[in-house]
Amino acid sequence: MKRKNWLVVAILALVVFGLGMLANSIMQRRAESQHLSRAENNLKPFESVNEAWEEYYPREYQSWKQTADTTFRSKHMSSNNDDLLAQRPEMVILWAGYAFSKDYTAPRGHMHAVDDIVHSLRTGAPSDTSKGPQPSTCWTCKSPDVPRMMNQVGVENFYKASWSDYGSEVVNPIGCADCHDHKTMNLTITRPALVEAFQREGKDITKATHQEMRSLVCAQCHVEYYFKGDSKYLTFPWDKGKKVEDVEAYYDTINHVDFIHKLSRVPILKAQHPDFELFQLGIHAQRGVSCADCHMPYKSQGGIKYTDHHISSPLANMNNTCQVCHRESEGVLTQNVYERQDYVFDLRNKLEKQLAKVHFQAKFLWDNGAQEASMKPILQLIRKSQWRWDYITASHGASFHAPIESQRVLADGLYYAMLAETNMNSLTDKMKITATFAMPDISTKAKAQTAIGLDMAKEHAAKEQFIKNVVPQWLQKARQKGLLVSAKN
Amino acid sequence: MKRKNWLVVAILALVVFGLGMLANSIMQRRAESQHLSRAENNLKPFESVNEAWEEYYPREYQSWKQTADTTFRSKHMSSNNDDLLAQRPEMVILWAGYAFSKDYTAPRGHMHAVDDIVHSLRTGAPSDTSKGPQPSTCWTCKSPDVPRMMNQVGVENFYKASWSDYGSEVVNPIGCADCHDHKTMNLTITRPALVEAFQREGKDITKATHQEMRSLVCAQCHVEYYFKGDSKYLTFPWDKGKKVEDVEAYYDTINHVDFIHKLSRVPILKAQHPDFELFQLGIHAQRGVSCADCHMPYKSQGGIKYTDHHISSPLANMNNTCQVCHRESEGVLTQNVYERQDYVFDLRNKLEKQLAKVHFQAKFLWDNGAQEASMKPILQLIRKSQWRWDYITASHGASFHAPIESQRVLADGLYYAMLAETNMNSLTDKMKITATFAMPDISTKAKAQTAIGLDMAKEHAAKEQFIKNVVPQWLQKARQKGLLVSAKN
Repeated sequence: MKRKNWLVVAILALVVFGLGMLANSIMQRRAESQHLSRAENNLKPFESVNEAWEEYYPREYQSWKQTADTTFRSKHMSSNNDDLLAQRPEMVILWAGYAFSKDYTAPRGHMHAVDDIVHSLRTGAPSDTSKGPQPSTCWTCKSPDVPRMMNQVGVENFYKASWSDYGSEVVNPIGCADCHDHKTMNLTITRPALVEAFQREGKDITKATHQEMRSLVCAQCHVEYYFKGDSKYLTFPWDKGKKVEDVEAYYDTINHVDFIHKLSRVPILKAQHPDFELFQLGIHAQRGVSCADCHMPYKSQGGIKYTDHHISSPLANMNNTCQVCHRESEGVLTQNVYERQDYVFDLRNKLEKQLAKVHFQAKFLWDNGAQEASMKPILQLIRKSQWRWDYITASHGASFHAPIESQRVLADGLYYAMLAETNMNSLTDKMKITATFAMPDISTKAKAQTAIGLDMAKEHAAKEQFIKNVVPQWLQKARQKGLLVSAKN
Repeated sequence: MKRKNWLVVAILALVVFGLGMLANSIMQRRAESQHLSRAENNLKPFESVNEAWEEYYPREYQSWKQTADTTFRSKHMSSNNDDLLAQRPEMVILWAGYAFSKDYTAPRGHMHAVDDIVHSLRTGAPSDTSKGPQPSTCWTCKSPDVPRMMNQVGVENFYKASWSDYGSEVVNPIGCADCHDHKTMNLTITRPALVEAFQREGKDITKATHQEMRSLVCAQCHVEYYFKGDSKYLTFPWDKGKKVEDVEAYYDTINHVDFIHKLSRVPILKAQHPDFELFQLGIHAQRGVSCADCHMPYKSQGGIKYTDHHISSPLANMNNTCQVCHRESEGVLTQNVYERQDYVFDLRNKLEKQLAKVHFQAKFLWDNGAQEASMKPILQLIRKSQWRWDYITASHGASFHAPIESQRVLADGLYYAMLAETNMNSLTDKMKITATFAMPDISTKAKAQTAIGLDMAKEHAAKEQFIKNVVPQWLQKARQKGLLVSAKN
């Protein structure tokens, strides 16, 4: 053959090869869409068993399973110690009189949600004879079994039960059915509290755009909330707005108190995790970025683009997250994040120490005969201060999501706590107290827990019995009902 | 003619018209470059008369003249009151014992630089018989006559003269020769302090890129500085870094004190205007944006692209500044700026009031017999606090240039001032002082100035005489020397 003919053959071969590649890609995509149509047929409504979804969405499922992996640590997360009370014994003092002072650990991936609530000292050691101590509302954000049960028994009935009532029902960790419609796979809101909060704001959540939904499914749980009334009805305190002052004004109006502080007698507001609220006040949300854009970036496998369900810190995966928009190097971007975190952490540290001090100082005044009327304005200052500390500290990622808001709130908190000390000094003066205030030793978690009168040996022993005797029964029952298929739990 | 021929003629006409346009544009550009070559020939070295540059750079000159226009006001600049001491009488207290407590007004455009320093009460009322009260160093940033004089008399001799010595020499406001080489029109550094600071850092400023120079020409003056030694040698305190703590460490090392506070006896550090330092800590500088990018954006007139020399707030001109990079609307971007400013202003307000309080409280302790040794750590806290307040407050645009840094520094300042109060309460207690501390009335500028013992009537009268008798002589001499050609001054 002549050289020219060879060239024609070579080009032809390349074209045919290309067509083959294209055909393969089309077939892969078709196979994927067949999965989708099978999903429409085979998944049950309220399917809470995450494993049931694997067949239809293998990539999403496989990446979701990786949420069990919590090895990634950014700068301000200690690598070898998830016990935050051990890292920061002041927090034991701030929560004196509340279950958080017993046990508070670093957050872990969704796969651990049920495990962690069961093992936490905060949920105590209920048995058939000793119910509670927490209401069933505590389960609300832990599992796709919750919408299933709510559908079965009714929302209010679910909330007002005891936490231990649903030990054999709520067994699958946060997963597919929490955010997805079983038929269409569309993002969907399964928790009533968010829908109700929107309704009270005069908004219809079903009108949300897909991009909004990529944050709103997270906002079902990653928010500030409280348990309203005797039925412990899960409620978002957003009626006056989402800033720390707005939520405080809401709570003040209804005279809400989470607990009376054991040392200072301050009527404390305990913040949950106002992640969505604070995120919305930061520049990323203001520029239309959703939670999923950074925490669940798009990935590609073979011919298929899908959303990475290994929800994690964007720093673990910067080429797919930050660098989609920002052209700077990983090193520069990481430095930008750490700088914001450093600044917020520094203020938090100052405020945390100051708050521990004023709680003890208030106790000192009570012990020396201070009167209700003189103490009231001081207790209000401490309440305001601790609320601001908690709003930022409890919020995952606040220091990056909204650094200037976080600094503002913590600086205000520090101001109130310093004012409280000044006012207590004046009162000490006025009362002519001759005793001298001294801080007790709270340099370790154990010392701090002793200082607030906790019997941790007893707490641990009871929990151990609960884990040994009660939990296996719960899991066995769940298996019998077909709710639990994984080997691990 | 046939229709087709008409078409050919029409196309030809269009092409010819286009060529005409192109030729005109080329000619305009050539005319411009002829201006440039004439500039190389006709401008003298150290040409301080700004009007001499007009012929060669009409667009730059005309826009520079507009710096006289200071009508634009952003949210936090009062529209009808440039007297900042009247707006914030606490500032009178903070500067008790220093000339700033007499007169402090909102910054105005470069065109007013000489006028403003001459009219300020801070420069007093010198005459032939009463020199000073300020050193000649105060002129350094006010005029292109300064590099001219430095060249003539030597840098150190210039600094160590009296301010009044150069009243008939320094007469042209900040202009062309301050930043431009008279031959090449390249950006150039005319002030020794910046060059020397670079040298001490081991850097050669002549190696700076053009983009760096678009900030460095501003950094000749928009920085923190002090007058070193008996010759009042203008020096930038950057040897340990540019953060507020670095500069403080530098000043602490050399035991620098700007003034002893008249009430509290605190050895105060007065911040100048660390604009460049704080700008560098913000995200815009970190992303390579220069001062000129936002304050002197490119403009186009006819065929010529030039730099707008009407230096002003980027908010006055957002389509040429912010919106070159940011696609958001003016409304949204303005809101983003104001939010940052609001947060910083709120902290500043708190700190300013608290500082005024602790100065009086320290005086109260001195008046009641407090000892040097007990007061020293308290005075140090106030020094640290006021330094932080001033570093942010004195810096133009800090709240936007570096919002998270500004919040951090002010929050630290507030913390120190609150600690000072707490410690003074303890000391009052310990000293068993029976008198009660009360804040004097400082609700107006006049009341605050009376509270620190200023005789403002005397100050104003002397200044009036100076303006009436001395200044006209200075200007007349300057005209005779050919230094001053404008009608106004």
